[in-house]
Amino acid sequence: MFLSELMSVEKALKIIKNVEIGFYNEKIGLKDAYNRVIAENVKSLLDSPPFDKSAMDGYAIKAENTFGFSETNPAYFKIVDRISAGQLSNVNLKNGEAVQIATGTPIPEGANAVVMEEYTHAKSNDLEVATTLTPGENISFRGEDIKKGELVLNTGKLLRPQDLAIMASAGHDKIRVYKKPVVNVITTGNELVKPTSRLQGGQIINSNYYTLKSLVESCLAVPELSHCIDDHNLMKEQLKRSLKASDVIITTGGTAISKGDVVVDVVGEMGEILIHGVSIRPGKPFAFGIIDKKPVFMLSGYPVAAMVQFDVFIRSYLMQMQNIDWKPVPVSKIASKKIPSTLGRMDYVRGKIEGEVVHPQMIKGSGVMRSMVKSDCYIIIEENLEGIDEGESCDVLMYDRLKV
Amino acid sequence: MFLSELMSVEKALKIIKNVEIGFYNEKIGLKDAYNRVIAENVKSLLDSPPFDKSAMDGYAIKAENTFGFSETNPAYFKIVDRISAGQLSNVNLKNGEAVQIATGTPIPEGANAVVMEEYTHAKSNDLEVATTLTPGENISFRGEDIKKGELVLNTGKLLRPQDLAIMASAGHDKIRVYKKPVVNVITTGNELVKPTSRLQGGQIINSNYYTLKSLVESCLAVPELSHCIDDHNLMKEQLKRSLKASDVIITTGGTAISKGDVVVDVVGEMGEILIHGVSIRPGKPFAFGIIDKKPVFMLSGYPVAAMVQFDVFIRSYLMQMQNIDWKPVPVSKIASKKIPSTLGRMDYVRGKIEGEVVHPQMIKGSGVMRSMVKSDCYIIIEENLEGIDEGESCDVLMYDRLKV
Repeated sequence: MFLSELMSVEKALKIIKNVEIGFYNEKIGLKDAYNRVIAENVKSLLDSPPFDKSAMDGYAIKAENTFGFSETNPAYFKIVDRISAGQLSNVNLKNGEAVQIATGTPIPEGANAVVMEEYTHAKSNDLEVATTLTPGENISFRGEDIKKGELVLNTGKLLRPQDLAIMASAGHDKIRVYKKPVVNVITTGNELVKPTSRLQGGQIINSNYYTLKSLVESCLAVPELSHCIDDHNLMKEQLKRSLKASDVIITTGGTAISKGDVVVDVVGEMGEILIHGVSIRPGKPFAFGIIDKKPVFMLSGYPVAAMVQFDVFIRSYLMQMQNIDWKPVPVSKIASKKIPSTLGRMDYVRGKIEGEVVHPQMIKGSGVMRSMVKSDCYIIIEENLEGIDEGESCDVLMYDRLKV
Repeated sequence: MFLSELMSVEKALKIIKNVEIGFYNEKIGLKDAYNRVIAENVKSLLDSPPFDKSAMDGYAIKAENTFGFSETNPAYFKIVDRISAGQLSNVNLKNGEAVQIATGTPIPEGANAVVMEEYTHAKSNDLEVATTLTPGENISFRGEDIKKGELVLNTGKLLRPQDLAIMASAGHDKIRVYKKPVVNVITTGNELVKPTSRLQGGQIINSNYYTLKSLVESCLAVPELSHCIDDHNLMKEQLKRSLKASDVIITTGGTAISKGDVVVDVVGEMGEILIHGVSIRPGKPFAFGIIDKKPVFMLSGYPVAAMVQFDVFIRSYLMQMQNIDWKPVPVSKIASKKIPSTLGRMDYVRGKIEGEVVHPQMIKGSGVMRSMVKSDCYIIIEENLEGIDEGESCDVLMYDRLKV
């Protein structure tokens, strides 16, 4: 198939984007919710802090009793109670009285300020306060952080440590989040074997197994791996099992464009092929289909092509399924040498960034994994460009920024 | 304790950095090695590709037989064999002969090029080739990607999907990686309870449990959580258990500077306190000690202070333990309003970025988690600054860039 017959990347992405996504959610323990996306608006069940509490270790007093006093002219108090963390004082504090108080404990009735220990001098129950306090000083007031009934988190947020903290403070120990999609990866190919130092004639190590598993993990989704040889019926059986067990299917291999190839044939028979062949390099033999409303992404058997296809066509889909607000954001760099390309084709050239410059890794062959290992970014050459000149600025997508 | 008696952040970081790190490593399955750090230099056990293979679906031929031929004047061949994936051809190819060949299969003896199916027309065993090929065209040569004995990965690399792929292609299905540190987090405080809507007098929800667990996870380390009330003997017992079960200990609460407080006292008794009180806001009551050569980071009970202390003092240590090459990289933004600070103290003000501008979140109180939830960065105000003026540029550390 020639370039003119291939689908543009833009059109392919539009087709994939239009596939209805099944959003599922589940309730999980708050302690397991880091890096998950919240699927509900959450209101606080209580005020936080739940009572006026001391923000310091020190003494609860009436601020008025310190007015006009200072380091050289201290005010005198009588210590009438001492409370440590988790305790309450029953004292109703009067003028000239002080209650020793720990950080986080409730302010006793009658007190309206806390003087830090640093500004006091105590001897038995006699206390000198060497400063002037304003009412409210060193008190965290009830509801200051969160008020009961207040919205604390909105649906759709990727949960960070502080978001879990506010959920907890709002009284919740469970949280409703979007489910992680289960992604069944089927590597295909009679020739593929596990890593070994002793290959037999014609055997190739199945490196896609490892790449695809970790690529799926980098999207916070759950990979399930299987392997199938190039056999129509076995592939059909495998796809049936995978459809039952997962939300998304990814295959590698068997997507040749020029002739019938097992994977695309079987998917077409069981469902509908919406894309077959995209004007991208590497990655031209990409296919996409739907079986029983589930998306089937068919990647090339070539390791580098498969990685590029994953990053271009699958990554954002898996993010969307979890409602993660994610976009690949290219940065601008200067090309250290000329990068040829062809009008009408999108190129993902591997690059290595050095300051403001990017060095294209001109290693030929889409099977050459070394180009991915030695690089830290894709240089994206859009369809309307015939290449990038030396010294010209170009769009660069850093691998590090692809994951969540 | 007053500012002048507090340790500078720089000095505290130097002390922590000088604590000898116990590097441990373990051999794990390659499939589980994503986002781990390799702890050995790895050489390839074989050539990859392991044989000269076809880069295309097409026909293996002698390139010389196509010289001078073209679309209008095709060359003619006889198809003498057909091999699909995983198969070998025993043919020793002669002039005018062709072997149909699948992508990835070994090139038959005698052939030196592969013509893509697109440029051919076959009828039974007769083949027309409508192009001229150069010797080597569409062949991936043995060892083109990796040569046997060649170094494929160096120790100290955080493993990406492509790094796993090259390990596999080099024949390895196991890999030696740095161990993830086990971090025992002990939250302390009599008043702390699990999230609930019904707090009893003096009780506070233990939000640090969730923050610290996920902060440790964000460093790719393994959190183990425990809780202890403010009791000298119980704390001692808990620390003994934690020391046995973990590589690093983090505590929250009980670090007040002005007086003896349980955690710091017990750690001092069991080992040595190296830091107690740092000129940082929030986070002043930070302490650090060593027991049995294991680091004990003692954080404030205040949720925001504890987060800042973790990000400033612990994060890079946990990265180092896994040999992850990580540094917090601030970016420059313009302050949307004046941010006051004090000379001699480092401030971590929460900020919200909007394009090139950062809005400081001026919410008072280090216990106020909402300031962390509403913000997406720290605005760092160094010790030698008295604050930042409106419109002045300032250093900003994005939360998103803190995790690996």
